[in-house]
Amino acid sequence: MIKVLVAIHKKPGMSRDEFNRYWREVHAPLAEGMPGLRRYIINPAIEVPGRGEPPFDGLAELWFDDVAAMEAGFASPAGQETSADVANFAQPDKMLFVVAEEIAIIS
Amino acid sequence: MIKVLVAIHKKPGMSRDEFNRYWREVHAPLAEGMPGLRRYIINPAIEVPGRGEPPFDGLAELWFDDVAAMEAGFASPAGQETSADVANFAQPDKMLFVVAEEIAIIS
Repeated sequence: MIKVLVAIHKKPGMSRDEFNRYWREVHAPLAEGMPGLRRYIINPAIEVPGRGEPPFDGLAELWFDDVAAMEAGFASPAGQETSADVANFAQPDKMLFVVAEEIAIIS
Repeated sequence: MIKVLVAIHKKPGMSRDEFNRYWREVHAPLAEGMPGLRRYIINPAIEVPGRGEPPFDGLAELWFDDVAAMEAGFASPAGQETSADVANFAQPDKMLFVVAEEIAIIS
C-alpha cells in the first residue's frame, strides 16, 4: 500500500471550528467515495499554548493499493469532485501533496 | 490521545536513499526512546512519475496521551537528543510541527 499525505491550510476568514466542521461533515464524505480508497484519516490541527499558530491546519491521510490505484481514484468523478471541493474550505494553492511509504516503528 | 505531525525536508546534498536510511536506522531509534510515546510512524516520501519533487520529504507521526505528555516527552533527555539529531539529516528551520486530533473516516 501507499499513503497519500495532504497538508492543508484553512480558507482565509474561516474560523478553526468552521473549517473542521466543513472538513468532517462535507469534504470527508465526498473523499470517502473515491474508488480504491482503503483507509482514510483526517487530522485537524489543535492550537497548543506556547506553540503559536500551527504551520498548517490539518493533514489528510489516504491509503491506496499502489500509485496506479491512487491516480485512478483522483481521476474518477468522486476524486474530481473531492479536489474541486477543496477551495470551499481550504487553500488549493497552498496544498502540500506527498506520496509516501508508511513504516510503523511503534504500532 | 493527541498526534504530533512533523513534516521534514532532507538535508541539502543528501540523496533520498541516504535520508531514508538515516531516518530509519539512526533517528527513529532515538525518537523511540522518548517517554510517553504511544505510537510512532514514519512516512518517507516516494517520487511519483508526473508529480514532480515532493513538497516535503517525509512525515513523522507521534502519539501521546495528551499535550502535557507530549511536552514532557520532548523536554526529556531522549526528546532533546532526538530534536538535536534532526540537523544531521533534515532541515530544522523548515520543519513543520503540528499537534492534531486524529479522526478515522475509513479505518
